[in-house]
Amino acid sequence: MIKKQHVGRWLVIGAGGFIGSSLCRKLTKEGEIVTAFGRKPKFPEGLEDCRWIVDDFLNEKALSNAMEEAEFVVHALSTVKPAKSNESPIIDVKENLIGTLKLIELCKAKGVKKLIFLSSGGTVYGPGVPVPTPEDCAHEPICSYGVVKLAIEKYLAIQQYQGLLDSVVLRVSNPYGPYQLAHGQGVIAAVIERLLANKPAEIWGDGSVIRDYIFIDDVIDAIIAATQLVDHHAPRIFNIGSGVGRSLNMVIDSIAEIHGKADIQRLPGRIVDVPVSILDIQRANRVLHWHPRTDWMNGLATAYEWQKQVRLSKS
Amino acid sequence: MIKKQHVGRWLVIGAGGFIGSSLCRKLTKEGEIVTAFGRKPKFPEGLEDCRWIVDDFLNEKALSNAMEEAEFVVHALSTVKPAKSNESPIIDVKENLIGTLKLIELCKAKGVKKLIFLSSGGTVYGPGVPVPTPEDCAHEPICSYGVVKLAIEKYLAIQQYQGLLDSVVLRVSNPYGPYQLAHGQGVIAAVIERLLANKPAEIWGDGSVIRDYIFIDDVIDAIIAATQLVDHHAPRIFNIGSGVGRSLNMVIDSIAEIHGKADIQRLPGRIVDVPVSILDIQRANRVLHWHPRTDWMNGLATAYEWQKQVRLSKS
Repeated sequence: MIKKQHVGRWLVIGAGGFIGSSLCRKLTKEGEIVTAFGRKPKFPEGLEDCRWIVDDFLNEKALSNAMEEAEFVVHALSTVKPAKSNESPIIDVKENLIGTLKLIELCKAKGVKKLIFLSSGGTVYGPGVPVPTPEDCAHEPICSYGVVKLAIEKYLAIQQYQGLLDSVVLRVSNPYGPYQLAHGQGVIAAVIERLLANKPAEIWGDGSVIRDYIFIDDVIDAIIAATQLVDHHAPRIFNIGSGVGRSLNMVIDSIAEIHGKADIQRLPGRIVDVPVSILDIQRANRVLHWHPRTDWMNGLATAYEWQKQVRLSKS
Repeated sequence: MIKKQHVGRWLVIGAGGFIGSSLCRKLTKEGEIVTAFGRKPKFPEGLEDCRWIVDDFLNEKALSNAMEEAEFVVHALSTVKPAKSNESPIIDVKENLIGTLKLIELCKAKGVKKLIFLSSGGTVYGPGVPVPTPEDCAHEPICSYGVVKLAIEKYLAIQQYQGLLDSVVLRVSNPYGPYQLAHGQGVIAAVIERLLANKPAEIWGDGSVIRDYIFIDDVIDAIIAATQLVDHHAPRIFNIGSGVGRSLNMVIDSIAEIHGKADIQRLPGRIVDVPVSILDIQRANRVLHWHPRTDWMNGLATAYEWQKQVRLSKS
């Protein structure tokens, strides 16, 4: 995937998270030079070759040191979760919007070649959009997380317009796969964890909520493809998803097929959930020549097997 | 314009500014009860019947006191100017976005009936949109001022969606008329001032930049009409402009017609200027039953006469 004539220097912000740590693993495996910034990763295997800086996103000094000579900066960090963001929008703005504005200034000062910003395919559009949803439709987010992601996108577009900093925005749908925390944002990891523990799968609402799930390796491919976008007239915002919608009930059925069975416990729905989120991924295919490669059941089986091994190694 | 069976209680934030002070004058003249919050007005006439609170937007305590029993809150304050906003986006976000998020919380806590937010028809859309520009087209602002206005709009939409606070957003184009400061944002007041002082009119760029100018009384009408919107399913965002585009050269020609003549001095263009901004005002007409009433040359003559009188009274 990465052209081998040149070894790149990367800064991955949010390297302790699911997407960030997976990206670091892939990059160092390919021989790239990686500085990993963020919280301590829960699973350190495969991350030994990164230069680790465990620090706070809002610590400008630390971030500045981490950025030394980075060509590509990948910003995959958020201090809030979508579902909780409406409880504290001011904190969301202070930490994530202002924090990223400071990051943008740093990238400009350090001459970073390209900033890849991980936005959110599930929250920036809001309800009532066409499905599958293209990048250029109306944006009516119903949570602060989505508003902040959008505002960051618009500040990046201003930099692009003024020729001050090149960037690519990836609106990622719901990623899943190995190294996703069972008690984090990912519903697939949570369901697998419950089933492996012989507990019923939890369903928020009636299970009809439809999401676009994408295997982590495909997200990593998209990030790497984004760094290689050189046409200055090409769009800079891309949906990254499978382009396929699956209800929570369908997801649980698929996991049950792998696990053998699944009991279900129903919980009340949440107002921050849009009923359907499926991304139109044609633009990424056309411009980045990217396409998700992973088959749904194969990806799910890989995630399942990894979580099973983690449980076995702990017991 | 205001239904007289009920005297309303208003809080006008930014009451020292052009739109804010004009609104206060109109409201108190109609017998409404008005608290005026913001910087000291430059022209105090007609504002004697307001309860004045000269304080900082970021002083939450003062804002909270000012809000006592207000039914309608009109937020017409910005601490930055569009053209300067890209120099300090972090300050823009801290003061205007976070300040307004705090205002929203206050409005909810105090049970405010409706918050009217003055957004910006000239900066939220950016270049490359259809002209005249409808409310629901793509938003690609090229200055921080526009990004912050958009982000506030989206936070207001979340409150509306959750049923927590009713609001109306007015995306006002370029207002002009009596009480506009000659050294503020308004190009018309600036040109009149220069001509009255026997100096040449200043043109940024080649004068081809097209704007949608609206007479201040028509803006005030729109604000009052917005408070009377009760249909909860109606849209909450409205363009408020004349719907007519005029180049800067045309504006100067019109003023020259009133003044008798106009010399011109050309200055370099600015990157924050979009080349054309004309608003599509059909939605406000359809939903708010609002339409600009003021004829261009009459409005301009009124502005001119007022500035002339101010100069005479000073000399």
